Parts: sequence; structure tokens; C-alpha cells
Amino acid sequence: MYRNIALLLEYDGTLFHGWQSQNNANTVQDAVASALQCLGCAPERLVGASRTDAGVHARGQVASFFTSSRIPAEKFAYALNTVLPSGVTCARSAEAPSNFHARYSAIGKTYSYLILNRRQPSALYMRCAWHIPLPLDVAAMREAAGAIVGERDFRAFMSAGSPVKSTVRKVARLDIEDGLPDDIIKLTIEGNGFLYNMVRIITGTLAYVGQGRLSSGDVSRAVASGDRRDAGKTAPPHGLYLDYVDYREKIFAVMSQNK
Amino acid sequence: MYRNIALLLEYDGTLFHGWQSQNNANTVQDAVASALQCLGCAPERLVGASRTDAGVHARGQVASFFTSSRIPAEKFAYALNTVLPSGVTCARSAEAPSNFHARYSAIGKTYSYLILNRRQPSALYMRCAWHIPLPLDVAAMREAAGAIVGERDFRAFMSAGSPVKSTVRKVARLDIEDGLPDDIIKLTIEGNGFLYNMVRIITGTLAYVGQGRLSSGDVSRAVASGDRRDAGKTAPPHGLYLDYVDYREKIFAVMSQNK
Repeated sequence: MYRNIALLLEYDGTLFHGWQSQNNANTVQDAVASALQCLGCAPERLVGASRTDAGVHARGQVASFFTSSRIPAEKFAYALNTVLPSGVTCARSAEAPSNFHARYSAIGKTYSYLILNRRQPSALYMRCAWHIPLPLDVAAMREAAGAIVGERDFRAFMSAGSPVKSTVRKVARLDIEDGLPDDIIKLTIEGNGFLYNMVRIITGTLAYVGQGRLSSGDVSRAVASGDRRDAGKTAPPHGLYLDYVDYREKIFAVMSQNK
Repeated sequence: MYRNIALLLEYDGTLFHGWQSQNNANTVQDAVASALQCLGCAPERLVGASRTDAGVHARGQVASFFTSSRIPAEKFAYALNTVLPSGVTCARSAEAPSNFHARYSAIGKTYSYLILNRRQPSALYMRCAWHIPLPLDVAAMREAAGAIVGERDFRAFMSAGSPVKSTVRKVARLDIEDGLPDDIIKLTIEGNGFLYNMVRIITGTLAYVGQGRLSSGDVSRAVASGDRRDAGKTAPPHGLYLDYVDYREKIFAVMSQNK
């Protein structure tokens, strides 16, 4: 019995050097692969939906792998949590169709980004939010977000990295919540796919708008020019969370109150 | 110029062996005292409003000390954040009246407690919420909370420790929120003072109620009997937060959007 197993993973990105396996670095992919080995289940073709960078957190990373292990699909979550290292957990596991691929089957992703917007830093948010000491104009940021939402060429919002065929992506939603506890401003961005560092560059650009260093028109012009230099700086990784990966098939059972 | 300075402190409790100075242990009080020494300001009579235990977090601990330093009172927060170790920050500093004492002047405290209520653990809440895998009956917990609110003898909800004159305390509020993101249940408890481990024993007792191991009537009987064995077990420290300490005087300037 050769099966395709999908995992729903959470991790504290500050403890890992990103998702992708590397020599001489502690990565989430390697931690998951080692844990599966511990369970006597040699994983084949283990892939993650998103190759999150070092420092980036996940509450909804999806990974898939093939195995001939006899462990019931939904029991992998329980078994993995007994052997995974501190900082990574498995919320759910399920059998996926044989043609399911955590990365290529994804039709959408949702990320969130936390900004701590107050003068002094916070010990409780040190690892999990970007501290911006100057007050941000959230209304201006929301207006500029309008230039981001839609199907656009996001070349200006991409770091140099692996080449891509097209730099056109569709951002379906970009919400900015303020008035949250602890002076947190939360960005939520949903799209059909994201270029390398795209969410962090969008966040950094909107932070510039919030500080009055760029206008809403400047953001539109950056989209039009496709020039990375017209956008803001890349926001740091530790404020970013991969929240959800969407697929055509419902891989995991419907979320219950007590999932 | 001999002044009384008050500090508003935050810390990640998992990195410290509690507030109170100890030999051979990394405590918040020692970290703050060392940082003040670094600033050339020998603090005298440094006290904290609450002697939080090892593992307990704070977003609103208040400390006070006397000094002849010439650093402007409101600048201590900025200066401290340049020298404090990772895991503790100062949100605000202010000059307090000479008779102000962070502990004895407190007229109320608010704590919160986070429970992660879902089957699998979460990497993101490992250090900051108590994981209870079995579903909790929040309605039953709320009903039982009614037996806690009010001025009562909380002897049954106290761990053996430093002797106290009276075990009567007034709990003004005990809210239990569910339906929060990430399967979190949040308890908020406000009172004029708390006995040793009182919030954690109340939380552990309400968790028993949520699991059907105790009834609302059992909680009333525990209050009446004053017998520690009639209450539930002590909840672990890492879900507990000291949120706010109340004083008659407004020590820190009114909170602004961008404090």
C-alpha cells in the first residue's frame, strides 16, 4: 500500500533556517523528515506548499510525501508530535489523492504579518512581530493597499532569487486591522501565489506609506514601473506567518471547534 | 535629587526563574537591577508589584526603586531597552510619589490565562498557553466561575507558601472567552489581590469543570470548605500573564494609541 500523505504543520520560524532542506542548517523539512524516519516511515518526495524563509512562522504549512508505512493516515499527526523537535508540530494528517502535491496543487495562500506599533519594544512580541516605533497612518496604508489588490505584475515586489516564468499574481485580499490588543497592526494577504519575498516587500512598502515616506500614488507607480527600487524595503521575516494553503480538494477534514 | 521611579515591564516568563531575586537563578528582578547598574544608576529598594513564578509572563508588571540618578524619569524606558537582556522590556517609566511602593500601593491586579483547547499541540503556543487536548465545556466553566466571583475566603485556592494574615480576597471579574483564533480559550481575572498560586488553582479547577471532573456545585463547596484538596490541580505557569496592576494614582501617562 503506497500512499500520499498530507500534513498540516505549525512552526516557530525563529528556531529554524526556513522550510527547505539545506546542508549544515536546521530546517523544518529536515526536522519533519527525521521525525518520519523515527516512526519507521521512510518519506519519499517530501515537499512543502511554501518554501518559507528563515524566521518565517507557519500555522498552516502543508507538506506531502509518499510512503508504504502502515500507520493510519490520520494518526501521523499524533505520532509525529511525539517525535518532532520543539518548535514544530503537526495539527492534522490525512491521506491525499495520489496526484496531490503540496506545492503544485495549491490554488491559493493566505499570509499574515504582525507589526508592533508603539515606541518601546515588547518582550512578548520579540520573536513574532516587527517593531516599528514611529506611529503608522493606517488609513493611508489601507488606501495604498488598493494599488496592490487585483491581478497585477508584481515584478517590483520580488527579491532576486529563483527565476519564475511569470511575475503576474492575483492578490484577492489585503486587510489591515488596527485597534488590536498590545498595539498590534495585522496585515492579512490572500492570493493565488506569491513571488519570492513578495509579502515582506508589500509589508515594507505599506510601512513606508504609514510613515509618510511613500504615497499611495508611489505604490501604484511601483506596480506600473516594475522596478524593485520604487517599492519599500523588505520587512523582516519574524513578523510573517503562513496561515493557510488552499486546494481544490478538501485534504483535511472540516475544522471543528476542537480540531 | 532622590526620586522614586516606576517602571512598566514586560517579560517572557519561560526565560526567567520568576521575578524575585535568587542565588544562582536568572530572575527578572536581577536582570532589571543589572540593567539599571549598567546605566550608572544604583537602584535602591527595587520591588515588583507581583512576585511572578518561574514561567509566568508579564505585560504589565510594575516595579519601583529609589535613585539619585539624573536620568529623566520618562527616559528610563528608552535607556533600559538598550541594556536589558532578551526577553524583558520596559514599556514606560515615570516618576512616582515618594510614598509609592509597586507592591504595597497596588489596589488591584488583572491576570489572563491562555488555554489551547484542541487535540494536537501548537508550536506557536508552546511557551505561552496550556494545551488541554480534551474538549472543554465553556458554558459549565462560566457557570462555575460564578462561585469564584465576589469577596470570599480563597483558602482552598492557595498553595502552601509564605504565610498571609487573611485569605479573603475579592475577585471583581472572571471572564472566559472562547471562539478566539487558534482554538484559544482566554480567562481574565481581576481582583484586589491574589493568594499564592490562586489564579493558577482557579484555572486548574475550572479546567476540571470543563472536563466534567468537577461540577459548579463542587467549586462552591471547595470555596466553603477551604480545603485545598477540594479544588482542582494547579495549572502550569506558562499560560499565565500578569496584565495590569492598578493603583490609586495614575503612575504612567494615559495610554495613547502609540504608547
